[in-house]
Amino acid sequence: MSYFGNIDKIQFEGKGSDNPFAFKHYNPDEVVLGKKMSEHLRFAVAYWHTFTGDGSDPFGAGTAVRAWDHLSPMDKAKARVEANFEFLEKIGVPYYCFHDRDIAPEGETLQETNKNLDVIVDLLEQGMKSSGAKLLWNTANMFTNPRFTHGAGTAPNADVYAYAAAQVKKGLEVGKRLGAENYVFWGGREGYETLLNTDLGLELDNLARLYHMAIAYAKEIGFDAQFLIEPKPKEPSKHQYDFDAATTISFLQKYDLQNHFKLNLEANHATLAGHTFEHEIRVAGINNMLGSLDANQGDLLLGWDTDEFPTDLYATTLTMYEVLRAGGIGRGGVNFDAKVRRGSFEVEDLFLAHIAGMDSFAWGLKAAGKMIEDNFFEGILENRYRSFSEGIGAEVLAGKATLQSLEAYALQNNPIKNESGRQERIKLKLSEYIFSV
Amino acid sequence: MSYFGNIDKIQFEGKGSDNPFAFKHYNPDEVVLGKKMSEHLRFAVAYWHTFTGDGSDPFGAGTAVRAWDHLSPMDKAKARVEANFEFLEKIGVPYYCFHDRDIAPEGETLQETNKNLDVIVDLLEQGMKSSGAKLLWNTANMFTNPRFTHGAGTAPNADVYAYAAAQVKKGLEVGKRLGAENYVFWGGREGYETLLNTDLGLELDNLARLYHMAIAYAKEIGFDAQFLIEPKPKEPSKHQYDFDAATTISFLQKYDLQNHFKLNLEANHATLAGHTFEHEIRVAGINNMLGSLDANQGDLLLGWDTDEFPTDLYATTLTMYEVLRAGGIGRGGVNFDAKVRRGSFEVEDLFLAHIAGMDSFAWGLKAAGKMIEDNFFEGILENRYRSFSEGIGAEVLAGKATLQSLEAYALQNNPIKNESGRQERIKLKLSEYIFSV
Amino acid sequence: MSYFGNIDKIQFEGKGSDNPFAFKHYNPDEVVLGKKMSEHLRFAVAYWHTFTGDGSDPFGAGTAVRAWDHLSPMDKAKARVEANFEFLEKIGVPYYCFHDRDIAPEGETLQETNKNLDVIVDLLEQGMKSSGAKLLWNTANMFTNPRFTHGAGTAPNADVYAYAAAQVKKGLEVGKRLGAENYVFWGGREGYETLLNTDLGLELDNLARLYHMAIAYAKEIGFDAQFLIEPKPKEPSKHQYDFDAATTISFLQKYDLQNHFKLNLEANHATLAGHTFEHEIRVAGINNMLGSLDANQGDLLLGWDTDEFPTDLYATTLTMYEVLRAGGIGRGGVNFDAKVRRGSFEVEDLFLAHIAGMDSFAWGLKAAGKMIEDNFFEGILENRYRSFSEGIGAEVLAGKATLQSLEAYALQNNPIKNESGRQERIKLKLSEYIFSV
Amino acid sequence: MSYFGNIDKIQFEGKGSDNPFAFKHYNPDEVVLGKKMSEHLRFAVAYWHTFTGDGSDPFGAGTAVRAWDHLSPMDKAKARVEANFEFLEKIGVPYYCFHDRDIAPEGETLQETNKNLDVIVDLLEQGMKSSGAKLLWNTANMFTNPRFTHGAGTAPNADVYAYAAAQVKKGLEVGKRLGAENYVFWGGREGYETLLNTDLGLELDNLARLYHMAIAYAKEIGFDAQFLIEPKPKEPSKHQYDFDAATTISFLQKYDLQNHFKLNLEANHATLAGHTFEHEIRVAGINNMLGSLDANQGDLLLGWDTDEFPTDLYATTLTMYEVLRAGGIGRGGVNFDAKVRRGSFEVEDLFLAHIAGMDSFAWGLKAAGKMIEDNFFEGILENRYRSFSEGIGAEVLAGKATLQSLEAYALQNNPIKNESGRQERIKLKLSEYIFSV
Repeated sequence: MSYFGNIDKIQFEGKGSDNPFAFKHYNPDEVVLGKKMSEHLRFAVAYWHTFTGDGSDPFGAGTAVRAWDHLSPMDKAKARVEANFEFLEKIGVPYYCFHDRDIAPEGETLQETNKNLDVIVDLLEQGMKSSGAKLLWNTANMFTNPRFTHGAGTAPNADVYAYAAAQVKKGLEVGKRLGAENYVFWGGREGYETLLNTDLGLELDNLARLYHMAIAYAKEIGFDAQFLIEPKPKEPSKHQYDFDAATTISFLQKYDLQNHFKLNLEANHATLAGHTFEHEIRVAGINNMLGSLDANQGDLLLGWDTDEFPTDLYATTLTMYEVLRAGGIGRGGVNFDAKVRRGSFEVEDLFLAHIAGMDSFAWGLKAAGKMIEDNFFEGILENRYRSFSEGIGAEVLAGKATLQSLEAYALQNNPIKNESGRQERIKLKLSEYIFSV
Repeated sequence: MSYFGNIDKIQFEGKGSDNPFAFKHYNPDEVVLGKKMSEHLRFAVAYWHTFTGDGSDPFGAGTAVRAWDHLSPMDKAKARVEANFEFLEKIGVPYYCFHDRDIAPEGETLQETNKNLDVIVDLLEQGMKSSGAKLLWNTANMFTNPRFTHGAGTAPNADVYAYAAAQVKKGLEVGKRLGAENYVFWGGREGYETLLNTDLGLELDNLARLYHMAIAYAKEIGFDAQFLIEPKPKEPSKHQYDFDAATTISFLQKYDLQNHFKLNLEANHATLAGHTFEHEIRVAGINNMLGSLDANQGDLLLGWDTDEFPTDLYATTLTMYEVLRAGGIGRGGVNFDAKVRRGSFEVEDLFLAHIAGMDSFAWGLKAAGKMIEDNFFEGILENRYRSFSEGIGAEVLAGKATLQSLEAYALQNNPIKNESGRQERIKLKLSEYIFSV
Repeated sequence: MSYFGNIDKIQFEGKGSDNPFAFKHYNPDEVVLGKKMSEHLRFAVAYWHTFTGDGSDPFGAGTAVRAWDHLSPMDKAKARVEANFEFLEKIGVPYYCFHDRDIAPEGETLQETNKNLDVIVDLLEQGMKSSGAKLLWNTANMFTNPRFTHGAGTAPNADVYAYAAAQVKKGLEVGKRLGAENYVFWGGREGYETLLNTDLGLELDNLARLYHMAIAYAKEIGFDAQFLIEPKPKEPSKHQYDFDAATTISFLQKYDLQNHFKLNLEANHATLAGHTFEHEIRVAGINNMLGSLDANQGDLLLGWDTDEFPTDLYATTLTMYEVLRAGGIGRGGVNFDAKVRRGSFEVEDLFLAHIAGMDSFAWGLKAAGKMIEDNFFEGILENRYRSFSEGIGAEVLAGKATLQSLEAYALQNNPIKNESGRQERIKLKLSEYIFSV
Repeated sequence: MSYFGNIDKIQFEGKGSDNPFAFKHYNPDEVVLGKKMSEHLRFAVAYWHTFTGDGSDPFGAGTAVRAWDHLSPMDKAKARVEANFEFLEKIGVPYYCFHDRDIAPEGETLQETNKNLDVIVDLLEQGMKSSGAKLLWNTANMFTNPRFTHGAGTAPNADVYAYAAAQVKKGLEVGKRLGAENYVFWGGREGYETLLNTDLGLELDNLARLYHMAIAYAKEIGFDAQFLIEPKPKEPSKHQYDFDAATTISFLQKYDLQNHFKLNLEANHATLAGHTFEHEIRVAGINNMLGSLDANQGDLLLGWDTDEFPTDLYATTLTMYEVLRAGGIGRGGVNFDAKVRRGSFEVEDLFLAHIAGMDSFAWGLKAAGKMIEDNFFEGILENRYRSFSEGIGAEVLAGKATLQSLEAYALQNNPIKNESGRQERIKLKLSEYIFSV
């Protein structure tokens, strides 16, 4: 059956269009810097927000009106599979992403849970074959069930740890079967509520052990996906171990995992950690750790993860600028880890929201491409750091300088002349670039 | 001359005392867990806040009323040296800390600046000899002068970089001469205002180069102080590279500096980064990176570094609890990087504020000592993680578990039984411990 | 049946006790400043957190293990009534509070919903009669049901507004029947998500209209409870109209409602608005608007309403100090709008958490009482403002001063002498008071 | 002499221009919604940031390079007057604003200070006459001098209060003489550091008394400027009394001042209080309190007042949309209370920054004008609230509804049908409007 029967395939109509159900900027085959938009962006739909989410929040029950609301758990799960492929096709998104528990309900036992999962994975496999849709990544939900109250890979209870490991094992098998390009870890309960009852060192050691086991098992079964860790500073835990990009990199280095993982960065998680999204991408980029993006936006006046669809063009432009400078998103993609607002409860909103996000990212990509073509900002950098390309600066870069040689230079070099950073001019120029595309 | 003539040496009078100019808790020779309070705490006075600071803020001129206000820059510098030793003696603090520019004014040239510095270092050396006061650490102020607008060790201008290097060289020489136990780097301008004009990768590479040069030079001159980096997330820069403990550790690992540095952690910097102070100490502790403490407190409803004297006993207790669990503060100490409020502009406030901080830390030390003696919180940990001491948990810790073995265990282990974390009970117990000392 | 059969009535055992299931500070008949603790504090249990809450959060299902988990909705509702009275008796709390939907499930129609409510209200009435428990306040939940997605008293849909009005009407009738001392309005959906689709002026006008109708109806049915509005700045809405005490007072003044309402202030809501709890109480106090307290505490490093049980003695002491200075809590009380942590899922935690909160508030009350008896802080105020009790200051207070007379005074009064505010000394003294009781 | 000799008068060159020293959007005579841009915007230059500011911050000395740096205080003051008029003319801004202490240095006595002030006011008067520049508003700086440490109009010291009153008196006289359109109160020290030494009620009473005296004196001397209060939540004080628009309105209502004052709203102050700027404008608008705007922008990831030049087009568009909907800015204006970044220390940056701000506001004005012409967002409102224009909704608005009549309606009206708020669609549409101009 059709779940979105009243909506046709969304078409690119260009900037002049007044049709809410059309793209004005996202034109998949349009070429930016020598590559198609669709290849730059590799959009993905998040199964949980789009098909499983219901608009509930801590103070209110679900509001979403969906055709499968009345079905039993397994029938609902099956309906959502159909809806997924219909939606992907109509919105023109090539990838999707899921947690194990998004796609199939838990049973009474792990055996039954895995059986439920297998039934749905069969359907997904068929759907992917017939539709051509692809799996950007899958992951294990190790935060919803009460058993994970105190953690999963960092649980103080070895039984929970074992359960989590079993769930990861199954997740890797599912990922291999569905040809996932990546496998993600997000540790919603991998953190603490109070240090007074927490053995931080032991918990992190155990988390690293779990990752090493996952690497070994993926190798064993020939699952060659890219492993990703998704940082988030807090929520639901009071403090989460993968606080931000730098913290996660520190962890990976300590446990000799840095060659096996990249980062799945999320805009709203960045801001909750006190960073811009572009900062997190830059940090990942200079450490060769840029893996994939969870595209959304937060509200900086609110202190929780609002997971809004990304519509701020400054943000999408700077995001794509950093991605382009880092050499592209690789095997990752731009996954809309975003949910329609509680008040946007109609099925039409799912389309309008994805259009908003896709157009905003396409717009940002075009602006970023133009910024790079023009060499405007890169030119600023070249000029600003030019003193390191010769003389004493070049000696520093070459590793030949010492405190003594630099002191000798400084003692005879008076006064020093700095140049303005021209931040105000740069900010206006950014607006002009965004506007010009 | 005497600068605090109306105030006598502060004595320990115990809890019953009603004398504002006496300690009720800090009793230097009192033994806690087998060690004297003074050895546990190794208090230091921050030269900048106590002798150089004037109570000014971004919206107001200095308010402090000091005996040296009317003097010329060099005479003022000399008066402050005398005041420093008088204060240390009267308040009973064994250590002090300074930036180069706190103790002596800059001249027209680096040569003149260094000459000013030498004059004051001579005086400090004499004062230390006669008073027995010691230098916990010194550092170079590479953030106040306009030349450092765009950075020092991360400046886009090689001339500035060279100047910074010269300043560090001199700082190491001064530290050696005065027998400093530590040498600190705090990068107030090592960060960025906008990524659009910043080459993050180059700047961090250069910072690492500077650190390597400093290590080499310290070795060359036989200065064996412990090197410390002080994390701070933002302010004055929009984003600072040494954001927090984990970020700094990540940087040190990347550039192979982790064996040459420890961390100088500050309470107010921790909270600005979204962490508790005890979190930062724990993170440093499990990475063997705990160096020294800048003791102060922030106002969590304000978004800037207020550097208040530490008076929250929950914070001082948890701080000392983490320090004790990490094996003590080593060559570091508890430096009052704290300033009297703008409205506390009288000389008496300098004493009252240090008494408040010292009593609060002594109080916290006693409470933490009792917590450890009673094994109350440690006992909770032992019980909470007991499943890792046998069976499948022990296999995990021994590195013998695999995803397969854990899955096999999980499949036959149903249901899982968790236990309450008892957070509410623990919180009340903490109040009871603080109260009981 | 007994729901807490393994737990006996909690007794006061005093500070020496090591029994987790005993009070060390809350001794209901102990007299502080001439009044019994129980009369000062008027504790209340929050039905929603204690009997309806299940420990779920936005990322996880409920964890709480309760004896009524397996029952049908109406049987569950009945069981909770029994549990309520058993709990109140065992914990020794005289009051409870509820939202209509906490106590009885919604039906298909408003008629059926009201019928469910009536069944439970009958049981509550009986239970109150036999146990002596009293209702501090009741309120209408106008935020959980999807119909309130866009607001209730500020809905853009008149049908929703009418429904809300009907719910308030029933709430007033229930309050009258059960002898509630107060009736509360908390507007979780009375706010907006984006100004671009919001008519702020109309929505506030409508809210005021609803309040006027409620006043009229309460008068009509002879329900003489005190009306309370509970401010909260955000969450679940992006922006809530009753942002904080001052905003709510502004609203009440504008619509001539200030003589009909007082404020129900909550600690965690205060901090989310950027204030301390004591600030909000002081603001209410000087405007004669202090109504009642929702006692809990937030985590200032987190940006959402954590509703933790209050255990910070600085906060409880300052809270009770403000309450005492404002002349007491009147017909209001100290309602534990607090939930056990998700990880504190055992029934025992309900008792341990209330003990923690009650002991912490009793402790704070005793400390605040001692502060007032000693006149320490009041004495500081008297001295600090003494210049307004004579001369030019007295003229200002008497309304006799003009800019001209003040200028004339200022021109001949040079220099001005200020005095230190002694904040550091005051902060340490506060610790000493708290820990002296 | 010329202070900006190398820079010509800035011209409008339109969107195609690549000249950094030209306007691309601000075209003063261009008509939007029937009124010239210059009349809509009424731009003003802030004397303090542009002529007095030096780029210093709490961690660094001034960086600005200005032609008057070497002069004595009074000569510097005179030079700045000349620079002011040259700048206004070259940048094409009609208004300026100042605090008394921006324009002239303090002397040893109030007499001497007023004399200094008079000298400069003479020069300003001449300059205004010859240049045609106008004074948007003036104010008294009652926060920089140490005498105001504990407050000015809320000082605990009557001598300080008298001094503040004298300063206000002089400010009103200066304003009258220079034909100021508004007179502003911003209370940087009107707040508290700790409630424990603060008599909040007395302080607010005194502040109200001062305002009443100012009103009386202005009337007496025939100064008919509009009085404005500028809310700010915190900084420099820990808590400031004029926290935000609603708080200030509450204060004005309480003291019967609401007909004598309007609000001077600032973008960065709004966000520090947890609001958007457009929220504050809307709140002022519906209370008939919109007075004037301090145009700048903050960094929402930083917790202090960064006072950046406004370049975010979302913000400028929504600001001007609210201003247009409120009927325009009246006697107020758009004052650039913004400072060039510390790293933008060259004189050219003053021009580039004002161009960035003016172009961004002109851009926002054009976008907002188009939004209103198209009736897109207004149309959404009309449709969304249509149920209040007939039937039961119309009865509510007419004041005829009661809880009984609404209950009767609700009981027979089942189920209720809501409509999506379409937030995602609206957000994308906003981008399209901004970038369509």
